Amino acid sequence: MLIVMKPDATPTDIERVLETIEKLGYKPHTLPGANRTAIGITGNDGSVDPAHFENMPGVADAIRVTKPYKLISKDLRPEKSVVKVGTATIGGDELAIIAGPCAIESFDQVFSVAEAVAESGAKFFRGGAFKPRTSPYAFQGKGEEGLRILAQVRDQFGLNIVTEAMDERGVDLVEKYGDCIQIGARNMQNFSLLKYVGKTRKPVLLKRGLSATLDELLLAAEYIMAEGNYDVILCERGIRSFGTHARNTLDLSIVPAIHNVSHLPVIVDPSHGTGRNYMVKPMARAGVAVGADGLIIEVHSNPDQALCDGAQALTPRQYLELFKEVQAIHQALLPIAV
Amino acid sequence: MLIVMKPDATPTDIERVLETIEKLGYKPHTLPGANRTAIGITGNDGSVDPAHFENMPGVADAIRVTKPYKLISKDLRPEKSVVKVGTATIGGDELAIIAGPCAIESFDQVFSVAEAVAESGAKFFRGGAFKPRTSPYAFQGKGEEGLRILAQVRDQFGLNIVTEAMDERGVDLVEKYGDCIQIGARNMQNFSLLKYVGKTRKPVLLKRGLSATLDELLLAAEYIMAEGNYDVILCERGIRSFGTHARNTLDLSIVPAIHNVSHLPVIVDPSHGTGRNYMVKPMARAGVAVGADGLIIEVHSNPDQALCDGAQALTPRQYLELFKEVQAIHQALLPIAV
Amino acid sequence: MLIVMKPDATPTDIERVLETIEKLGYKPHTLPGANRTAIGITGNDGSVDPAHFENMPGVADAIRVTKPYKLISKDLRPEKSVVKVGTATIGGDELAIIAGPCAIESFDQVFSVAEAVAESGAKFFRGGAFKPRTSPYAFQGKGEEGLRILAQVRDQFGLNIVTEAMDERGVDLVEKYGDCIQIGARNMQNFSLLKYVGKTRKPVLLKRGLSATLDELLLAAEYIMAEGNYDVILCERGIRSFGTHARNTLDLSIVPAIHNVSHLPVIVDPSHGTGRNYMVKPMARAGVAVGADGLIIEVHSNPDQALCDGAQALTPRQYLELFKEVQAIHQALLPIAV
Amino acid sequence: MLIVMKPDATPTDIERVLETIEKLGYKPHTLPGANRTAIGITGNDGSVDPAHFENMPGVADAIRVTKPYKLISKDLRPEKSVVKVGTATIGGDELAIIAGPCAIESFDQVFSVAEAVAESGAKFFRGGAFKPRTSPYAFQGKGEEGLRILAQVRDQFGLNIVTEAMDERGVDLVEKYGDCIQIGARNMQNFSLLKYVGKTRKPVLLKRGLSATLDELLLAAEYIMAEGNYDVILCERGIRSFGTHARNTLDLSIVPAIHNVSHLPVIVDPSHGTGRNYMVKPMARAGVAVGADGLIIEVHSNPDQALCDGAQALTPRQYLELFKEVQAIHQALLPIAV
Repeated sequence: MLIVMKPDATPTDIERVLETIEKLGYKPHTLPGANRTAIGITGNDGSVDPAHFENMPGVADAIRVTKPYKLISKDLRPEKSVVKVGTATIGGDELAIIAGPCAIESFDQVFSVAEAVAESGAKFFRGGAFKPRTSPYAFQGKGEEGLRILAQVRDQFGLNIVTEAMDERGVDLVEKYGDCIQIGARNMQNFSLLKYVGKTRKPVLLKRGLSATLDELLLAAEYIMAEGNYDVILCERGIRSFGTHARNTLDLSIVPAIHNVSHLPVIVDPSHGTGRNYMVKPMARAGVAVGADGLIIEVHSNPDQALCDGAQALTPRQYLELFKEVQAIHQALLPIAV
Repeated sequence: MLIVMKPDATPTDIERVLETIEKLGYKPHTLPGANRTAIGITGNDGSVDPAHFENMPGVADAIRVTKPYKLISKDLRPEKSVVKVGTATIGGDELAIIAGPCAIESFDQVFSVAEAVAESGAKFFRGGAFKPRTSPYAFQGKGEEGLRILAQVRDQFGLNIVTEAMDERGVDLVEKYGDCIQIGARNMQNFSLLKYVGKTRKPVLLKRGLSATLDELLLAAEYIMAEGNYDVILCERGIRSFGTHARNTLDLSIVPAIHNVSHLPVIVDPSHGTGRNYMVKPMARAGVAVGADGLIIEVHSNPDQALCDGAQALTPRQYLELFKEVQAIHQALLPIAV
Repeated sequence: MLIVMKPDATPTDIERVLETIEKLGYKPHTLPGANRTAIGITGNDGSVDPAHFENMPGVADAIRVTKPYKLISKDLRPEKSVVKVGTATIGGDELAIIAGPCAIESFDQVFSVAEAVAESGAKFFRGGAFKPRTSPYAFQGKGEEGLRILAQVRDQFGLNIVTEAMDERGVDLVEKYGDCIQIGARNMQNFSLLKYVGKTRKPVLLKRGLSATLDELLLAAEYIMAEGNYDVILCERGIRSFGTHARNTLDLSIVPAIHNVSHLPVIVDPSHGTGRNYMVKPMARAGVAVGADGLIIEVHSNPDQALCDGAQALTPRQYLELFKEVQAIHQALLPIAV
Repeated sequence: MLIVMKPDATPTDIERVLETIEKLGYKPHTLPGANRTAIGITGNDGSVDPAHFENMPGVADAIRVTKPYKLISKDLRPEKSVVKVGTATIGGDELAIIAGPCAIESFDQVFSVAEAVAESGAKFFRGGAFKPRTSPYAFQGKGEEGLRILAQVRDQFGLNIVTEAMDERGVDLVEKYGDCIQIGARNMQNFSLLKYVGKTRKPVLLKRGLSATLDELLLAAEYIMAEGNYDVILCERGIRSFGTHARNTLDLSIVPAIHNVSHLPVIVDPSHGTGRNYMVKPMARAGVAVGADGLIIEVHSNPDQALCDGAQALTPRQYLELFKEVQAIHQALLPIAV
């Protein structure tokens, strides 16, 4: 069930709807929009009787939800969500560029990259302190020490920090040191973890699983939002296919597919999405041209010696070229209002 | 590094090797085999010098490991592992049949199925108390109450309980009530959870992720074993493909592929692997014919009213037919010693 | 539209129905079954009015077809089709084993393999004279010379010859020298070629394309049958997936899926389906256990020196073991009447 | 083997190399480039001795080919090939836009679309006279009558005609009426057909098969070129994956992958690549941004009533918007010289 308020509904009208929902034993989710507020209802086992709401002051409509998701839906908020991440936003007119190394290796490594990222004009910095590695014997990240280095990057360069958490302890730490909690592709259906980050008040960057369908991705976001955290950014990072020319198959068609049904912003990761240095720039351009709200890019000052994913990292110079190219496309498309 | 002891090595010889490994700051993993004991070494950053071990009494060989995995490997234990689960085993000559409902719904539902399972002669009972569901609004399982019902099934029927855990709290509870901790396909690369179950002393049933390669599956098992829990059973449960005639594509070729490189037992799940009632029996037969060490089968006394995955559940009668058919194949292949 | 005749319909009744169909400008397809004859109608643009047939003598029912296929359907013939191939059959109680080398290389190579195949008791011999090779620079087959060698195999050993044609000229030659025309996976949707073999009177072995869905495979068979050739045998030979432990992913679940909707027999190709010598036996066993009507197996007297697909070819000795194992399974399942 | 001539090699030098190749019993393939001519050699069974050529006048180098392909390779022609199609080109600085209906249905339907295509400034018109349809009962195209309508479009609007052939008779007809022979995805590995178009002198648009790897696509082009037809344009049109939000997964990363190893131009088909009207524009933009040499777009004046693929066809108005948007991106990237 979804309650759409009239454009002129008062705060008291809204308050009364919320009270009614809670009295019925359900959970209300208020999403104010540009022209009207809508309130999603979760926690109901069966269907909710619209009669409870239809005649309440300020209520425009009580709509039964037929799709598997509620809170991610444009039915709830017709215009795109703009998510605040630290001092900047993702989902607005400006392209959100998140750049940085795959893994935090050392203070010097991180700072040399952060300098280039700040210079480009990007507002977000990425870097992993907890690394989900296929092998237990591979470098697993520097943990809290890495997060402290990231916090210094924010202090020094004013960049907002996006970094992954793999479990509850990690979420607590990223909440403390970072600005946005990344949930990796392998944890996209770690439902316990999704519920946990749903209870934090930090925005969440949710990466699509390697074989996740559109609905599975949207419902993973729904898990987070159902707990009360509505600041979710989706990320396409490549799917598993039979192909071998790239490490993954970057499925850009999911960007218009998401925008078609959801108000959530979506960014593209051409670094993991291709795994090949020479493909990152063209696929980043394609990601912006298709209408993504931003990009997440791996940059390393010395890709050959990266402890993780060196084959896909750009040098700072390549990154600056990429930044220029994608801005050119973004500018070219602005007047067309894609 | 892998230390192979001579067949006549004494406990003292083995003890000395373990001490040497620990003195070097590494972690030893002792896997006694039918003819000889081998000791895997983990925790080393670079390569280990074989000279430390080559001249020690009882040592037959010190072998450098070139593959990405160590402990799952037949290099460490050439014969298949037989894993003890409660009062029975998986991996030996007998086919291990694990049967039961998808989700624990009620005492009556569970007991009516358990009766059929016990009657068939199967030694393991399955049933989910924690259900990883694509939607946050779907039935999430009965939690600890469900586990208590499962414990009663064990008491009443002598069946050993295999049940899924989705997070650390769940692992603690399954350790308390069950006999085998199942890690689901969606958590196969939830590395924090793998490490956590690696520290328990209950056997682990590890299901292959929907798009996991052979190496990714083996390395997920390696995560568990590297923590000291060597009782791992692998499970093929269908992969994602373009196909639509079944819910997943049951990839039976991974059974000989696993047996080719690993000593771990592997079972097949034709219920999730097909998602279609009418395919479960033929694919169960195929799973046994290909050489799997067992099957995990969903049975429901009233599939039409199942809260979860009813389309793939067998009735008790269908299950008993399946049991008879797979035993016929198992018997037919015994003299051939496949 | 599908006309089902009464069990006691006379040849004259049937003849009249055929005449009526032809008078309407359509094409009748008569498929006599065990208990009744059914007549499929193709060539109609829109729907056919059942009133034309309902009151005709001997007509039991005139059924509108709602599925995309007509002639492959169990609606037309409820019991499985038994296809005559030379002096033997595929689809009956006996397991059809088709064995031989990937490519015809020389008289000696072919005869040494044919000896083993004949010795096993198999009734079909395979071997490619026209080879669809990924590279234009790879061995393309010996053409008509190869077909002549195959004809000698039939003369000498009484084996029925199954061999691939890639184009119309090839079809004409295979019709002349062989007993069954194989259409390869890469040509499964070469619709011009399907129509062409539909006009021959030799049985056709149609291999599933590497990414063909069930419906696409069935409709490819329908292309052949719509031209009047009803002797089609389907073949699962592995699909493309992300997996790397085998060359393809043998999708055995398509066997019960086909038997669920179609009367056509289906065989399994574990050689191409895995591309790995050590997997052929276990997957052949699984193919028989799942209910396939036969197997097609690559055998080479010297796999290391095969001009084509040596990695998957069995030695004659391995082939004889396989034959014994799959017969054991076939025997074990006979009393169960799978 | 590949013979690279010096920049100042004379026609006589080249002639002598060709004669030597032919005398050895091989086939020479001359590809003149911007700075030098290279000559590929095919028809050799084993390796060719470079000593035959190294000391000949005008020869710069004789290079052994280690990759599976020769003629498609940038080793043979380092700069991109510009393929002449009728009165225009594909592969040069200008974006090649090929637009038109899926199938030729009638003179009026075709002319109303052709008007919009000509108005946009596009230089190529598409439309199928022979339609490869999954079902034998679906509309199969108007055949030669359709081709005659296409020839009238060329006469009237000066548009160059790109249209599919499915067999040898079709190739002969397209050669007669059209400007470019399209080989569809389902025929990408119809090697007999590839050889046949390799003997024509019309350019060939070769679409990637639904599950073709990069190498398989390149080797299919190599089949055509090995016969002497070097005017090949590749086309990405979506691959089969598990995804359901689009009909296929448009794999744009293959564009830089092709440009990385081959001199052949490559275009993108966002219509078949997505199968969804609302995705065609964004994916067309992405295709241009990634660096494709052109686009092929389905346009229908009345998509709801199209006999084929209506769900993906753009209206003429949508097509004109798309044209504007992709030109804006093309212009934005020109100064960057992607």
